[in-house]
Amino acid sequence: MEWVAVVTSIALLQAFVFAFQVGMARVRYDVKAPATAGPEEFNRAFRTHQNTLEQLVLMVPAMWMFAWYVRADVAAGLGLLFVVGRQVYRGAYMKNPDTRSLGFGLGALAIVVCAIGTLVGAVLSIV
Amino acid sequence: MEWVAVVTSIALLQAFVFAFQVGMARVRYDVKAPATAGPEEFNRAFRTHQNTLEQLVLMVPAMWMFAWYVRADVAAGLGLLFVVGRQVYRGAYMKNPDTRSLGFGLGALAIVVCAIGTLVGAVLSIV
Amino acid sequence: MEWVAVVTSIALLQAFVFAFQVGMARVRYDVKAPATAGPEEFNRAFRTHQNTLEQLVLMVPAMWMFAWYVRADVAAGLGLLFVVGRQVYRGAYMKNPDTRSLGFGLGALAIVVCAIGTLVGAVLSIV
Repeated sequence: MEWVAVVTSIALLQAFVFAFQVGMARVRYDVKAPATAGPEEFNRAFRTHQNTLEQLVLMVPAMWMFAWYVRADVAAGLGLLFVVGRQVYRGAYMKNPDTRSLGFGLGALAIVVCAIGTLVGAVLSIV
Repeated sequence: MEWVAVVTSIALLQAFVFAFQVGMARVRYDVKAPATAGPEEFNRAFRTHQNTLEQLVLMVPAMWMFAWYVRADVAAGLGLLFVVGRQVYRGAYMKNPDTRSLGFGLGALAIVVCAIGTLVGAVLSIV
Repeated sequence: MEWVAVVTSIALLQAFVFAFQVGMARVRYDVKAPATAGPEEFNRAFRTHQNTLEQLVLMVPAMWMFAWYVRADVAAGLGLLFVVGRQVYRGAYMKNPDTRSLGFGLGALAIVVCAIGTLVGAVLSIV
């Protein structure tokens, strides 16, 4: 499970960096809390962070359950796919939000495979 | 713990479907990213997804700790109550947000029982 | 690990109370769902809750991995620092959002130490 822990730590630190980038965008574009909307550049940084958390909330438990009930090495690989997906997502989104589908899809794929894989694995181990 | 894993997978997939429904509402009502507000129907889909994640973030760790320190079968049952609650919540919210209390309350109840139960169970096992 | 479970339960209940305070602010300032913006007091309550969830999503897995791969007692202590940080954050934010840095920083510090500590601990146990 060590590799799953390594990949999870990287995913958490990635989300932390995205949060930090929102903080920097707050300063640069002078968007004072509690406002969460401002110039387009700020809005894009804000939404990539939010969307990353929305996926991360599903990915972390799904990846660990998949590691336990199916295979730990495949779980770590899917976790890495997730991290790459979120980086692709942010890069595309900051340039043009309409190009965010690929990065989004990689993360979504990793989540669905882990969640459905766990469902099958856990049910099989009950039966 | 297999049943807890089964119920958790279902809860994660439920949140994933809610996210997908927001994406469909984006297309239907032409709400382009990074905007997160638009026609009332879109806003309702957006908020039910957000609120589900807000509760899911508390429910998943609370349910697993409760399973470990108190009882796994009761944890799975409370997890199922949570999933039913979120479905009731979404159904009611999409028709009329003022009727969201019951569905919200079921999820909140499951969270509070799991968190307080864990607190008591873990403290008792320390003493 | 019992202390980590105790601290996690407290952190989850703290976030639950913040959510409840948003609900009360909805009633007091008459901000009807699905709206998420209203008078400044409501906006502050809303954002402190959101920001607490944004950090909690990273803290819970980071703290448990740190407990497992590094030290459980230090993990529980960092968890306590996180809870104190979020309380300081909310208290400051509700008075004046510009004074939120200290409370924010305590939570961020706890997250970074847990995530980087886990990364180092897990890699060392692989090598």
